[in-house]
Amino acid sequence: MKAAFYQGEQKFEVKESKKEPLSPGSVRLKVAYCGVCGTDVHIYHSKMDKRVSIPQVIGHEVSGEVDEVAPDVTNVKAGDKVTVRPLKPGEEHAFDNGFRHIGKNLKFIGIDTAGGMQAYWNVPAYSLHHLPDQLSLQLGALTEPLAVACHDVRMSELKAGENVVVIGGGPIGVLIALVAKHKGANVLLSEPNAFRIELCKSLGLTAINPMENDLVKETETFTKGAMADVVFEVSGVVPGVQVMTQLPRVRGRIVMVAIHSEPRGVDLFQFFWKEIKMIGARVYEPEDFNEAIALAASGELPLQKLITQVSSIDEIQSVFETIDHNPGGMKYLIDCQA
Amino acid sequence: MKAAFYQGEQKFEVKESKKEPLSPGSVRLKVAYCGVCGTDVHIYHSKMDKRVSIPQVIGHEVSGEVDEVAPDVTNVKAGDKVTVRPLKPGEEHAFDNGFRHIGKNLKFIGIDTAGGMQAYWNVPAYSLHHLPDQLSLQLGALTEPLAVACHDVRMSELKAGENVVVIGGGPIGVLIALVAKHKGANVLLSEPNAFRIELCKSLGLTAINPMENDLVKETETFTKGAMADVVFEVSGVVPGVQVMTQLPRVRGRIVMVAIHSEPRGVDLFQFFWKEIKMIGARVYEPEDFNEAIALAASGELPLQKLITQVSSIDEIQSVFETIDHNPGGMKYLIDCQA
Repeated sequence: MKAAFYQGEQKFEVKESKKEPLSPGSVRLKVAYCGVCGTDVHIYHSKMDKRVSIPQVIGHEVSGEVDEVAPDVTNVKAGDKVTVRPLKPGEEHAFDNGFRHIGKNLKFIGIDTAGGMQAYWNVPAYSLHHLPDQLSLQLGALTEPLAVACHDVRMSELKAGENVVVIGGGPIGVLIALVAKHKGANVLLSEPNAFRIELCKSLGLTAINPMENDLVKETETFTKGAMADVVFEVSGVVPGVQVMTQLPRVRGRIVMVAIHSEPRGVDLFQFFWKEIKMIGARVYEPEDFNEAIALAASGELPLQKLITQVSSIDEIQSVFETIDHNPGGMKYLIDCQA
Repeated sequence: MKAAFYQGEQKFEVKESKKEPLSPGSVRLKVAYCGVCGTDVHIYHSKMDKRVSIPQVIGHEVSGEVDEVAPDVTNVKAGDKVTVRPLKPGEEHAFDNGFRHIGKNLKFIGIDTAGGMQAYWNVPAYSLHHLPDQLSLQLGALTEPLAVACHDVRMSELKAGENVVVIGGGPIGVLIALVAKHKGANVLLSEPNAFRIELCKSLGLTAINPMENDLVKETETFTKGAMADVVFEVSGVVPGVQVMTQLPRVRGRIVMVAIHSEPRGVDLFQFFWKEIKMIGARVYEPEDFNEAIALAASGELPLQKLITQVSSIDEIQSVFETIDHNPGGMKYLIDCQA
């Protein structure tokens, strides 16, 4: 079997590897597709060397079939079509407040442990969700990022008819916009990349370039003066943080989706003045995976258009190099069936 | 009748003035006491000259008796003991989202219009709340800041048994701590002023000095490792913002009570990582006034100890000068009955 090992310093090596034996409670998957996440690109740029054990197989946006299960596993069987919710909660801690999906001792599968960019992959049985027959394995590999979007939208307590601004039109921002629109919101997306703006328009979204248009004024027009009920900050950059507090109306909500690696100047006065709420949102809970799978299987979202390229695992090095040189690309899938 | 006019540049002038005639829907109060708010001190320091019309009577923390009502007023009558909810909602705007207490066209009575530091004061009838017989007029003048605290605690969705940290032990911080404790929370208050720490202890609160103790470690100990369910940022200073994101547990809440006049460096990563919520809270709604009055009348809070000094309106200049030189003081009342 083939496995792609991240070697550090922007290098992958695809090697022959062996199926691993099954420990109790675990399942071996025959991986079909593995999507490349922004986090994988971070790892590729050596920004997460503290968490990754080089050489390591990475990747966590996976679809596949169950190859074999440990004797004590009952929730899935060989041949089942599945995806992985890549969270391994550790021992429960008082700090967790009962929320195991982001608990103190959580391990993220594919970062803190081996990932899915290999032909066969052992994972805990509890991490698996079944994929319905009508959902292709390629779209099944989008379940994980779609579950992120479902979680972010759920955390926002979005109601149909509300006005939404999404700041940042990468894969997660676009998926949030699609999910929010599907729930009946009026969605305006802000993204500086021309390719992505065009893609958003082809998906039926309203997208503007904040370098060419004043996002505050555009929001005022878009909402007929009411301003935004919900703002999703997905850009991760300073201008996104600067504008996010200017967009909500009274008691509007900001969902903090982006990872800001250093403190940002935030206009806290706006929180006080308008009684804004800001809600941090990270990964997903099982119900978000269930919602994402149902939504993908419904065929009501134009997910296929988000797939920029599907490449064999042998080409993984060039895929990561392409992502670096093509910031307009959306979702790259690695075909691990080779 | 006497009235204290703010003249600009840290000067008040107490002058003889005349009772004003009643316009429809208005009520003339015979003011008993008017508390000095931090906002009044800001006005005194010329920081709000854009909103204040010099010379102007200021003040909005009032207790008194109804002197006379306009013919169309039915909710109060002469002789009623009352306090004022000093909000004058303007025309409704889509931006308000239905929340009139902080709507776009809101005027704050005592800042944007004449205030209560005078013997007789005309106010809209709808702004009045009755004070019960058993509540003294001095404590009645604490209703407004207590309603702020009730609003802040209500916005936090506090539940009995939760762990709370209050950053900042001025009048509002102390009242928040008292209300949260009364609701069954375990409350830790952080305040650098030694006088205020001692006062907090005399009120039965647990208070520490963040200059002498590590607030993060103290919170860890206080909560037995769980960390805070709710953090109230009432300090308005940079160290308060720096520490506020370190204190909550997973899905903890931060209530932004303080007025931060410029952008602050906020560790947004903590919002993402722990799914923290931050909730802006400003002034109050009618139900917060009702709760504050019932709470004050119950006698279950040691409110009397918060009154540092009661002074005649003739002494108003020296009261504001004293506040400037005695940062450990809590609540100063102006007796307007002179």
